[in-house]
Amino acid sequence: MNGAQALIRTLVDAGVDVCFTNPGTSEMHFVAAVDSVPEMRTVLALFEGVATGAADGYARMADRPATTLLHLGPGLGNGIANLHNARRAHVPVVNIVGDHATYHHRFDAPLESDIASLARNVSGWCRASASTEAVARDAAEAVAAALQPPGQVATLVLPADVSWTEGATAADPVPRPAATPVSGEVVDVVAKALRSGEPAALMVGGQAVRERGLLAAARAASATGAKVVGETFPTRLERGAGLPPLERLGYLPEFAMAQLAGLRHLVLVDTKSPASFFAYPEKASDLVPEGCEVHVLATGADDAVAALEALVDALDAADTPVTLAPAARPDRPSGEITGEAIANALGAVLPEGAIVADEANTSGLWASGATAGAPRHDWLTLTGGAIGFGMPVATGAAVACPDRPVVSLQADGSAMYTLQALWTQAREALDVTTVIFNNRSYAILNLELSRVGVEAPGPKALSMLDLSNPDLDFVSLARGMGVPAERPETADALTDALERAIAEPGPHLIEAMLPGRW
Amino acid sequence: MNGAQALIRTLVDAGVDVCFTNPGTSEMHFVAAVDSVPEMRTVLALFEGVATGAADGYARMADRPATTLLHLGPGLGNGIANLHNARRAHVPVVNIVGDHATYHHRFDAPLESDIASLARNVSGWCRASASTEAVARDAAEAVAAALQPPGQVATLVLPADVSWTEGATAADPVPRPAATPVSGEVVDVVAKALRSGEPAALMVGGQAVRERGLLAAARAASATGAKVVGETFPTRLERGAGLPPLERLGYLPEFAMAQLAGLRHLVLVDTKSPASFFAYPEKASDLVPEGCEVHVLATGADDAVAALEALVDALDAADTPVTLAPAARPDRPSGEITGEAIANALGAVLPEGAIVADEANTSGLWASGATAGAPRHDWLTLTGGAIGFGMPVATGAAVACPDRPVVSLQADGSAMYTLQALWTQAREALDVTTVIFNNRSYAILNLELSRVGVEAPGPKALSMLDLSNPDLDFVSLARGMGVPAERPETADALTDALERAIAEPGPHLIEAMLPGRW
Repeated sequence: MNGAQALIRTLVDAGVDVCFTNPGTSEMHFVAAVDSVPEMRTVLALFEGVATGAADGYARMADRPATTLLHLGPGLGNGIANLHNARRAHVPVVNIVGDHATYHHRFDAPLESDIASLARNVSGWCRASASTEAVARDAAEAVAAALQPPGQVATLVLPADVSWTEGATAADPVPRPAATPVSGEVVDVVAKALRSGEPAALMVGGQAVRERGLLAAARAASATGAKVVGETFPTRLERGAGLPPLERLGYLPEFAMAQLAGLRHLVLVDTKSPASFFAYPEKASDLVPEGCEVHVLATGADDAVAALEALVDALDAADTPVTLAPAARPDRPSGEITGEAIANALGAVLPEGAIVADEANTSGLWASGATAGAPRHDWLTLTGGAIGFGMPVATGAAVACPDRPVVSLQADGSAMYTLQALWTQAREALDVTTVIFNNRSYAILNLELSRVGVEAPGPKALSMLDLSNPDLDFVSLARGMGVPAERPETADALTDALERAIAEPGPHLIEAMLPGRW
Repeated sequence: MNGAQALIRTLVDAGVDVCFTNPGTSEMHFVAAVDSVPEMRTVLALFEGVATGAADGYARMADRPATTLLHLGPGLGNGIANLHNARRAHVPVVNIVGDHATYHHRFDAPLESDIASLARNVSGWCRASASTEAVARDAAEAVAAALQPPGQVATLVLPADVSWTEGATAADPVPRPAATPVSGEVVDVVAKALRSGEPAALMVGGQAVRERGLLAAARAASATGAKVVGETFPTRLERGAGLPPLERLGYLPEFAMAQLAGLRHLVLVDTKSPASFFAYPEKASDLVPEGCEVHVLATGADDAVAALEALVDALDAADTPVTLAPAARPDRPSGEITGEAIANALGAVLPEGAIVADEANTSGLWASGATAGAPRHDWLTLTGGAIGFGMPVATGAAVACPDRPVVSLQADGSAMYTLQALWTQAREALDVTTVIFNNRSYAILNLELSRVGVEAPGPKALSMLDLSNPDLDFVSLARGMGVPAERPETADALTDALERAIAEPGPHLIEAMLPGRW
């Protein structure tokens, strides 16, 4: 077998059997080789940012990496923004970046560039495969590197001649690296802080915001009077009726500081010490209240869930009752379509087992609250702040979970970065319902403009935040990529459309026109 | 004034008065500051690759840089592919990449990343501005760096606090660096080679494929019996009736080798020694024939046009007559729409002074020939091989040359990378006519798949090169972004539509459905 065949066989043997790709000439032997490995599923994207974002969404739901296949430096470049989000999500991703044949570099052909400089920006592990003999082992190590707890982006550069040369053999999987156990001493220190009687909070993120972690955190908090706060942008939050509800830290520092005010102990569980998303003139970046001690129970490299359960044991709290979210749905909304009405529509119809990819930004403020008592579902958020994550992540989540409906809450501005995801959803007949919150504005920037201290923005400044002139018509855009779409005129019609779209197989898009900026 | 105001004033004073942008929160003070400098025009893009490609197209036509304004690492990442093309085009571009406030880095906020690692991939000059006092001088030096012959990408990272702090003053422009004169000895060596009587060719690119360079090269060739060959993908080729016609080196190495066969002297003028675009198994990457001596008359850093004119003098060829392309247009095509018919339609109606951005790829094979005798026009090509260049470059060219019609020849596959350019064309009412060559395929990859030696591709491989299922409907896509669009059914109707679209102000899109892959 040639290098490409051995590489793909090795990936599949290591549990990586989905490839999100936008290939080019230097990847043609990889492309040809996929048919020799029946287990490898290939999913074509029309833009690399869709492929990398889909790999992120896939990993969030499958808990194992997909591979991407990208075309040299520019292909990787197009995928950087969503790899940045994947890096911040701490999910495993294996990038295969095709490159020129090793002997071709010296000609400095038009597509030659320093791929490693790009890869380093997003990758915890990066290697250029040096030979056909080495490529399968490189692939096995890339998968293991991607799975290094909590998960990271691993990038393997694949020269065309390494790919096309015969004489390769598949390599065995490298054992999956284990998370580090948290010591009893650390657990005891945290238990003591929680028992101190001083105001305390557990701040949970990463692996700790799924059912087991949430239950353990809730028990530890319930037994000690501490509160539980979730990180602002979790990778995958399990929520809904029957699970402990989680209050997430606010995006705006004023809100976050109010949530944290008065704490004397803040216990971090697979998350970082709270800091402002952006810096603002005259405002602190560090959100930890003065006099509050920060304890790290577990980092992402640790077994955070086991640490929380050990904490529950240390607190003798295994039988402590916890509050679970009651089953509750808002009434089906009627009248004008607003951000709140869309949220209530979602809360009214969201089915059991749904996956929500949330990039509604300012317009989505109400969505979390309106779905708190909906049947159990997963909520995926913008971990790295690079907009254009939502539609690709929804795509990858749907590939990972073909039996679960995916709802993609999407602001108009951020939709336009990776809109090509709709075509992949149509091609793969993925069960994704996209709701576009169309306020014809980069509303969050209007907000931020005032927050950074600009009091009287001029017409040129305002025009850079305005998405009207011309208006975007997402119904036309979706139809142009083969996705059925509609624009309901009332909240009632929107709720019906949403319910119908979720129930029908395949992708749908609903464009919700919002009256104002929010 | 604050740092942002001083920066923008300095850019304008240095001749940089167009900003293609997709800003975020860290750029809000720059956004607010543009209204304080009336000369700075801001052009909003919905995706950073449109902004960077527009800066490339602008520079190709204006011969001076525009600035981009991008949002941290992910924003720069989205712009990398078209900056790669700009780097390969050797055009001046000034990137301003907003960053977190200097004191905010230590919190490793979600959008934190190693911006420099990305910037180095594409930039000949890169600096992070360290203080409000330094930022204006940094900007002046960035402009000068961008103008370093032949032109390069210069990237200035702008921390938010450097931008918002008061106390800055504008800086004077830094003198524009001059091209290096070519010595008489070099010219004499080349003159001797051309006079040797042995088969020789001048290979011209860069600055040498505009009128003065083309005329001088044609004279030198005509006086000595040498031939003139153009580089495969020129930045800006001046062509049409009344100019020396230029045969470009073929993209496929077999064709290129046939064009170069038998040469004993190859004289490079602002271009590189010919090499294969990609490596292929069992095929040479170096396209210089055996026994052919390669001479460098001028690099891009040199004054290549003056060197060619000095060569004409050294050859006593100032009065040598040269062949100019005669005025000639193909007949208006009729019948079925094919790649050839579209080319003939273009040749039949292309107006004087048009600018053609050519990303038609395989479908565009006939376009160059059919327009060889059209009224004088400029032809912009894919210099770096990173597809998705055409629509953004057309956008930037139209901003640079508001009185000239722009025709954007665009393949379906590559159109989908940076389709958001249509919205900017509509917002700015740019006179761009886009012709989509829709063959529902990555046709070039079908070609390359067979060329790399894959004889019987399987169904998964073929599906990765196939753009049907679902079909893309570019009329809907264009209308979704406010651009009038139509899909003519015959070559006659297409010719009429093209003529009408070019004549009418503002953007238009014409979708041409092609019968087969080519």
